[in-house]
Order: sequence, then structure tokens, then C-alpha cells
Amino acid sequence: MTAQRSAAADRAAIADLLARYCRGVDRLDLELVRSCYHADGVDHHTGFDGTVDEYVAWLAPALRRLAGTQHLVSTQLIEPAGDEAVAETYGQAVHWGDPPEDPRRNFTSGFRYLDHLQYRGGRWAIRERWAVREWTRSEAGMFVAKEADGPSGRRDADDPLWSLRSRVLGTG
Amino acid sequence: MTAQRSAAADRAAIADLLARYCRGVDRLDLELVRSCYHADGVDHHTGFDGTVDEYVAWLAPALRRLAGTQHLVSTQLIEPAGDEAVAETYGQAVHWGDPPEDPRRNFTSGFRYLDHLQYRGGRWAIRERWAVREWTRSEAGMFVAKEADGPSGRRDADDPLWSLRSRVLGTG
Amino acid sequence: MTAQRSAAADRAAIADLLARYCRGVDRLDLELVRSCYHADGVDHHTGFDGTVDEYVAWLAPALRRLAGTQHLVSTQLIEPAGDEAVAETYGQAVHWGDPPEDPRRNFTSGFRYLDHLQYRGGRWAIRERWAVREWTRSEAGMFVAKEADGPSGRRDADDPLWSLRSRVLGTG
Repeated sequence: MTAQRSAAADRAAIADLLARYCRGVDRLDLELVRSCYHADGVDHHTGFDGTVDEYVAWLAPALRRLAGTQHLVSTQLIEPAGDEAVAETYGQAVHWGDPPEDPRRNFTSGFRYLDHLQYRGGRWAIRERWAVREWTRSEAGMFVAKEADGPSGRRDADDPLWSLRSRVLGTG
Repeated sequence: MTAQRSAAADRAAIADLLARYCRGVDRLDLELVRSCYHADGVDHHTGFDGTVDEYVAWLAPALRRLAGTQHLVSTQLIEPAGDEAVAETYGQAVHWGDPPEDPRRNFTSGFRYLDHLQYRGGRWAIRERWAVREWTRSEAGMFVAKEADGPSGRRDADDPLWSLRSRVLGTG
Repeated sequence: MTAQRSAAADRAAIADLLARYCRGVDRLDLELVRSCYHADGVDHHTGFDGTVDEYVAWLAPALRRLAGTQHLVSTQLIEPAGDEAVAETYGQAVHWGDPPEDPRRNFTSGFRYLDHLQYRGGRWAIRERWAVREWTRSEAGMFVAKEADGPSGRRDADDPLWSLRSRVLGTG
């Protein structure tokens, strides 16, 4: 973030930021989610409109009702202009929970994040986000158990990501 | 596009181009679609083979039969070699329309775009594309209404992307 | 790979490597898969734990039981630190096969690749991978024939990717 500025570096920093948002939501790391917005950030979501603090307060119990989420982002166009930028990021958010037949806990949504980003205080962060919902697919009864044992994800400090980062990168 | 050439800059310009193609299709901005090809560009698609002008003429009514599409591109390998490049881009195209039970208007296709790109006239664009279909999944009866109000997309000038870009970037 | 080192170049090389892994699996190019790991690489997968050589030996018949796969990678965070790096890469793996009603041959899995990468011998490659399974969706009876003729993929030397690369890039 404090690296030298260039259009390429700005775009890379913004792409990273938008991926960290997904990591924060999916790992239930709400401070990581909050850190993706400036302190005066604003979010417009399906069923929500407000400040970043209000958004995190709304998001936390909504995520905890579910067993897990995965926010897969794909098509992305980032357009920086000085200390401002617009980013459009497509994605699919997969949600799962119990019971597996409950369509309100088992669904995939297609979205476009439309972000107004600003470079302030030495970092890029979201000033305002519109999470545009494109489509919603019920996954009621569609998720099945995996066919064998293997690495599993968690939403707490025991997810294997954190121990890997700690070991290799010396993080927290 | 008129920025200094380098392998990294070429790859970034090509990745942007391929994302703009998706934006053009999904926002029904057919001139944006056309601009992703050179004037002598050629496209090979499921159900279509011809020049870019023929392709846009074929695409327009096919898109208008639907209520919306989303082209989510993911795994991508871009290999530039001078003023030529090969790109392989994976993706999923989600299609929805009325009635929701119609499998010809509600389906997701998995594809690989195989692109021969050329740098000519100061810009990268597609010389020839093979849109390889990998799989097709019916979504008949799978799409549901979203669970609450919130930002929605459009395929005309009122999509929130355009006002955001205009406000922040001073575009059109 | 032998290009000048920088954080941006390292990240680009790693993103390419992780996409080449997908290409290798989906095109049944097992030597390409193997080349994404260092010779002492280790893989942890659903139903598998072992060295890269053991992994390729296990993977080959599992892939051949299927008619095709597509590994669509999306959200990605790459964190280099000298000659070490951690990458988290989200993705969906679509699997299809006969008969189309068989849920063991027709399913999509959501995963996170957690990779420990190392730069050794002039190249980045995987030292250890955890393929974390997030969710599994049955696609039994969901895949349908495409609506018209058009470019099709193959898992042998006749896939159109190889002739395009040969013609434009002068490869193999």
C-alpha cells in the first residue's frame, strides 16, 4: 500500500483490496471486512443501506446464521484516475447452511460490485459500494457431502490459511 | 492502450479488453462489444461463424430475447509475442429470461475463449476468437426472486455503473 | 520465469503458474500438472495426501473416469516474501461424465487452494498445497446438450488451443 504509485500498482492494490474483502466475509473476519472501507465508507446491499459500521453490524449476524459462504469474484475492470477509482467486479456468492433444504440458507447469488474507491491516508479503500444483485439461484437440496475426507475450511483461527501464513510470512 | 509497451502492460491491456467484452455483452452495449475486435475480426461461437459485424448483428437479437446475462471470466493465461498474443480465458455465462421455467432462456454455459489477439493501430484487439463450449447447465425453475430490495442492474444508460463512472471519471 | 524479479513480477508468475495447473488438469496434460510443483512438492486433496508424483498417479485415472473437467479460479490473494509465497485461490471445479444422472461423475465443487510456493532453480512452483473443499453441488441430470454446433474442447492434442498456440507462438 505504501509502495510507489503507478497506474499498474494502483490497480494491483485495488484488486488485492477487493479480494481481501471476500476473505474477510468468508472467514468471518469482520475487522478485515471493515478495513476494506474508509472510516466514512458507505454500502448499498440487498436489504441494507448505510455506513460501513452499520454494514458490519448488519452483516455479522447474517453470516452467523449460515454454515459458510464463498465469494468468488471474476470479471473485473478497475479504472483509476488520480486518487479516485471506479471498479466493477463480477462475482458469485455461494451460501450454505442447515437444514440443506432451506432455500434461505442455501443459495447462490450473482452480483456486480460497483465501487468508488479513494486513495487517502496512504491506502486505497472503498468510499461507496453498490452490490448490484444480478440473479439468485436456490441451492435447496443441491449440496451434498464430499466424497472422501480432506482439507476443510473453518471460519475461525483454525482455518489452515492462518497457520500457513504465520509459518511462511511470519504474520500474527 | 497508448501507454508504454512491455510484456506486463500488454497482458494488462489484454485482460482489460477481455473484461470489457463481457461488460459490453451484459450491458447490451454492442458498440463496446464491436470495439473489442479489429475491423477484420472473426468469431466462432456456438451457432455462429463469421465476421465481427455479422457477429454483432447475430448477437443483438439473441441477447434481447433474454432478460439478462452475466459473463463471469476466471482462469486466464495470456501469452504475448511481439504484436501477437494468444489468450485462453475460462468463464461461465449465466442467462435468464421469462418464463423462468424455459430452459432455452435460463441456463448457464461453461466456456473457454481462445483468442488470437493483435496489436495494431495502437491497440490490442481480437483478430479471431473460438468460444469453446465446455458444458451447459439448465437453470429452468432454479432462479428465485431476491430476498429484499437493493441495487439492481439494467441494460441501458440507467445502470448505476454509468452514473458512477460519469461522476468519478468524468466519462461521457 | 527467468525475467527480472520484483514483487509484481513474482505475483504475475505465480498467478500464471496457478492457471497453468488448471489448464494441465482440464486438458489432461499431466506433465503440465507435475511441472507446477517442485520435485519435492506435496499435495493434500479430498481423498489424497502425498507427494506430487503420487498425486499425478492418483489424479490420472480419476480424471479419465470423467468426460471432462473445468477448473475456474477466481478470488486470489498472492503474498510473496523473498523466495517464499503464500497464495489463496478460490475456484469451482465442474466435472461431467456418463451417464449424466450419475452424481459421482456430474458435480461441481467449490474449493480454496492454499499454496506454499517457493522460488528455486529459477522458477516459482508449489512446495505444498492444501485443496480445501468448501462445498459440493450435485449436477446429476442438470447438464444438457448445447443448443447448436460450435467449437468444442478436447483433452488431447486436437484441442483448438494447441493449434492456435502453435500457429501464433510457434510452440511445440
